[in-house]
Amino acid sequence: MGKVRLEAFSDAVLAIIITIMVLELRVPHGDSIADLAPLLPKFLNYVLSFIYLGIYWNNHHHLLHTLHRVSGGILWANLHLLFWLSLLPFVTDWMGENHFAAGPTALYGGVLFMAALAYSILVWTMIASEGRASLVGRAVGRDLKGNLSLAAYALGVGLSYWQTWLAQGLYIAVALTWLIPDRRIERAISEE
Amino acid sequence: MGKVRLEAFSDAVLAIIITIMVLELRVPHGDSIADLAPLLPKFLNYVLSFIYLGIYWNNHHHLLHTLHRVSGGILWANLHLLFWLSLLPFVTDWMGENHFAAGPTALYGGVLFMAALAYSILVWTMIASEGRASLVGRAVGRDLKGNLSLAAYALGVGLSYWQTWLAQGLYIAVALTWLIPDRRIERAISEE
Amino acid sequence: MGKVRLEAFSDAVLAIIITIMVLELRVPHGDSIADLAPLLPKFLNYVLSFIYLGIYWNNHHHLLHTLHRVSGGILWANLHLLFWLSLLPFVTDWMGENHFAAGPTALYGGVLFMAALAYSILVWTMIASEGRASLVGRAVGRDLKGNLSLAAYALGVGLSYWQTWLAQGLYIAVALTWLIPDRRIERAISEE
Amino acid sequence: MGKVRLEAFSDAVLAIIITIMVLELRVPHGDSIADLAPLLPKFLNYVLSFIYLGIYWNNHHHLLHTLHRVSGGILWANLHLLFWLSLLPFVTDWMGENHFAAGPTALYGGVLFMAALAYSILVWTMIASEGRASLVGRAVGRDLKGNLSLAAYALGVGLSYWQTWLAQGLYIAVALTWLIPDRRIERAISEE
Repeated sequence: MGKVRLEAFSDAVLAIIITIMVLELRVPHGDSIADLAPLLPKFLNYVLSFIYLGIYWNNHHHLLHTLHRVSGGILWANLHLLFWLSLLPFVTDWMGENHFAAGPTALYGGVLFMAALAYSILVWTMIASEGRASLVGRAVGRDLKGNLSLAAYALGVGLSYWQTWLAQGLYIAVALTWLIPDRRIERAISEE
Repeated sequence: MGKVRLEAFSDAVLAIIITIMVLELRVPHGDSIADLAPLLPKFLNYVLSFIYLGIYWNNHHHLLHTLHRVSGGILWANLHLLFWLSLLPFVTDWMGENHFAAGPTALYGGVLFMAALAYSILVWTMIASEGRASLVGRAVGRDLKGNLSLAAYALGVGLSYWQTWLAQGLYIAVALTWLIPDRRIERAISEE
Repeated sequence: MGKVRLEAFSDAVLAIIITIMVLELRVPHGDSIADLAPLLPKFLNYVLSFIYLGIYWNNHHHLLHTLHRVSGGILWANLHLLFWLSLLPFVTDWMGENHFAAGPTALYGGVLFMAALAYSILVWTMIASEGRASLVGRAVGRDLKGNLSLAAYALGVGLSYWQTWLAQGLYIAVALTWLIPDRRIERAISEE
Repeated sequence: MGKVRLEAFSDAVLAIIITIMVLELRVPHGDSIADLAPLLPKFLNYVLSFIYLGIYWNNHHHLLHTLHRVSGGILWANLHLLFWLSLLPFVTDWMGENHFAAGPTALYGGVLFMAALAYSILVWTMIASEGRASLVGRAVGRDLKGNLSLAAYALGVGLSYWQTWLAQGLYIAVALTWLIPDRRIERAISEE
């Protein structure tokens, strides 16, 4: 019941978040390509957030594929995840305007941390509802990768106040490790 | 006929409303976490409106599940509900910028009242179309909870001019009572 | 082939248009209900455009229901309709800010005229593709109501420069005649 | 697996991109039709970008119709295409505000080039996944038209710095050649 609408709603929210970020790219006053130079850090930030949202969409897509029954808890765990992701345009914008400042870099990591935590909570809620022996239960296992990402984001928040670029590099590095969609679920499906 | 499109359209509108609210969070001029402090009331307001929209989405999702035939009246009752919900970003923004002022707090309650009334009208229209003995007719019954919420919002509008924080507390309290999706419909379905 | 995506895309575009209009309602500087007074004409305009978009969504929903095969021509006729509807937030905003001025009122009528024409073109394209004897061919017939609406919008454009309020009243009157979804298609379906 | 969500997500992103462009059309300060004159180049740009997005939506719709299995590579190739398309509102706005300047015209061509390249990459990724003998493999063939378009966009970037209007004319000419949805896929389907 209702899984189609849950996916449709999540797709719509993710599609809107990923697209409205571009509204934050204000056109420069001049009319030469050189006038775009100050926008470059903001643009790179936009790329990074676009990739993160793409990763979430891909994994969310795989995760919900394993879902059989939508409970009230799953609905709210899903909304909770969308809530943190909806803050990405705001922190992307702030970090883009203050690219080398510690505060926005730390907040960016904080939102990534909360989104990753919300994703884990969604997984746990689904396992609680579907059972340990279910597809999602077997596929996710101890979730080492998810936990390492959480640790990396937390580290990034701290690093922001020491070496800002190191924190930003860490966020990029974690994104790269997630570019390949979560194979565990596909493997668990084909094993079945 | 057409129930899928009715759901898809409502999902899209609710997804857009819930997401564009974040556009109202303007990044601060400074670059330290402390510069975010003035945004806090606005942020908390955003959280409250996000939760309200989540509640409406959840309940709408359950309600439409019981629908068999989409009539012209139901289409308009649904659009009427979406209309009032589409005003939430506006009143959220106004209340967020004037957090302790009576006017915006009263208007926020007024929009919540109208949205709740529009939801009731949608339920009545569905019962009129599907019949008292239908799933929705049996599930909703006298709708005590819906009527109490309406009364609470109306009370909130009045309280805004006496003790603004009391009105805001009331809006939060009502939201909390709705966090659990409407069990009556699930019960009526499983009884069938 | 592809009818589902055509509907989904149109629903998404209409949902976005109907929702972004509210972004044009800027919160007032003051914090009392009286400060909302200057927003009233804009708000009423928003209501009118919301109703027009609701009418288009309802009728579009009925119209596409009769479609069997999506051709390239139908895809473009549909995009052409969405194009004119996407200009509604712009003209709503302009007319809202200059409520008693002739220019915006005339332009509003012009966009309504073009949207209605685009809707007729979509109907003709569908009849050309599905045949005169098809459901849509029999249901729409000579389309007196559509043609009268076109004439009313054209009249409204002219009236704007004589008595602006008369043009605005005409736009409201036409909207009222369309509130009831097009029965001809439902009748043709049930006759089948 | 997941093709429906891939289509739904792409539809939502394309619908949002096509609609938010209109937000860039700011209403003029005056209230006569003559005050719209300075908006005309911007409006024409909006029309051109609307047509390009319509073309992408149409072709994407046909292309995905041939897809059998969604792989991780296809998900990312699709997101990569959406990324470049999401930059269209930005470059449309910039070119609209500096209609006769070389820089924005060159950048517009550059984004069209990257979007077309991303579309080709999506096609190649699908052929790699589905096989040369698959529907998409047979339908696209050597893709002369796609390659010519890429060359035309590259030429447009260069021409921008010599005769800006020639580059803009070229972008319009290429769009016109794509107005008719890609017949090759429909032909390959009916041959089957």
